[in-house]
Amino acid sequence: MERIAIDMDEVIADAVGKFIKLYNRDFNVPLDLKIDAGNEIYHHVPQDVNQKWFEYINEPGFFRDLDVIADSQRVIKALQQKYDVYIVSAAMEFRNSLVDKYDWLAEHFPFIDWQHIIFCGNKIVNVDIIIDDRIKNFINFSGRPLLYTSPHNLLITDYERVNNWEEIAGLLL
Amino acid sequence: MERIAIDMDEVIADAVGKFIKLYNRDFNVPLDLKIDAGNEIYHHVPQDVNQKWFEYINEPGFFRDLDVIADSQRVIKALQQKYDVYIVSAAMEFRNSLVDKYDWLAEHFPFIDWQHIIFCGNKIVNVDIIIDDRIKNFINFSGRPLLYTSPHNLLITDYERVNNWEEIAGLLL
Repeated sequence: MERIAIDMDEVIADAVGKFIKLYNRDFNVPLDLKIDAGNEIYHHVPQDVNQKWFEYINEPGFFRDLDVIADSQRVIKALQQKYDVYIVSAAMEFRNSLVDKYDWLAEHFPFIDWQHIIFCGNKIVNVDIIIDDRIKNFINFSGRPLLYTSPHNLLITDYERVNNWEEIAGLLL
Repeated sequence: MERIAIDMDEVIADAVGKFIKLYNRDFNVPLDLKIDAGNEIYHHVPQDVNQKWFEYINEPGFFRDLDVIADSQRVIKALQQKYDVYIVSAAMEFRNSLVDKYDWLAEHFPFIDWQHIIFCGNKIVNVDIIIDDRIKNFINFSGRPLLYTSPHNLLITDYERVNNWEEIAGLLL
C-alpha cells in the first residue's frame, strides 16, 4: 500500500483565513482580502505590523479553531481505503500549536489514529506521495510531490499542482 | 551526512524511574525495584493497580521532569558533528506528553533545534540509523537499528545492542 503524507496548514486547515480575521479585528484589514500571487499574508498588512503574524501564530488557541479546507475530510477518508495516509505537519516550530493541532485533528479527522500523525520540523518521512503547499518540503524527496495551491506558491511551475481536494480525488482515487 | 533517529523514553529520558517513584508514593513499591528481563514495569506492581501506569502517563507533567539518561547529552552533541541527528518520539500516543516533551528537550537538549524533533506514532522516518528500545520501531526499517538496552528487551537477540551512551560513542564516533 502506498503511503501519503498530507500537510495541515493551507491543505486541510485554513490558517490564512484565521490570520485575516485577526488582522481585521486589530487593524481593519478587509475580511475579503485577496493575496497576490507569490505573496504571503504579511505582505498585505500595514508595514509597521507585518510581523504581527508571528505573535498570532504563537498564541495558544490559534490553531484550535481553524476552518477545515473544503472536501478534505471526505476525500481523505476515501484515500484511506487505498493508501496508508499520514498527516505530517511542521508543528514543532510553534510550541503552543502542538496540543491545538492534536485537538483539531481529533475533532475534525477522528478517523485518523495517533499512529498516523506526525508533528515535525524537517519532513524526513518515508512516503510515496507528499501533498503540501511548501516546496521546501519537497527537497530531496524522491516520490511524487503534489503542490497544493496557495497564493504564496502560485508562481511556482516546477511541480504537479492540485487546486482543491476534488482534484486530488480525481488524481489518486 | 548519515541521519540518526534517537528515541526519547528509556534512551535519553528515564521514564521507568519516574514510574517507580510514583508507584512508591502510591503503593510502597520499593524505589530500588529491579525489573526482570523481558518484563515491563507494570508486571512488578500489585495486580489490582497494574494499569495505574496508564493514568500516570496521561497526567500533564509526567514527562516534564524525567531524569536524563547518563552521558546522552554529551554523546549526542558529539554525534551532531558527524551525523544529522533527529529526536523521534512516539509522543502522539499521549496528548499531554507533547508539550512536556517539547519543554524537556528545550531544557536538556537546547542544542537540538525544532527542525530536528519529530513527535509521531509509527516511525516512518527516512534515516540511516535508529537508536530505540522498542523493536516495533525497527519493522520495515532497512538501515542500521541499534537496540538500546532496557529491561523489557533483554531477552531479544536479533539486533545489534547498545547498553549505554558510552557504547554508542564507541560505535559511531
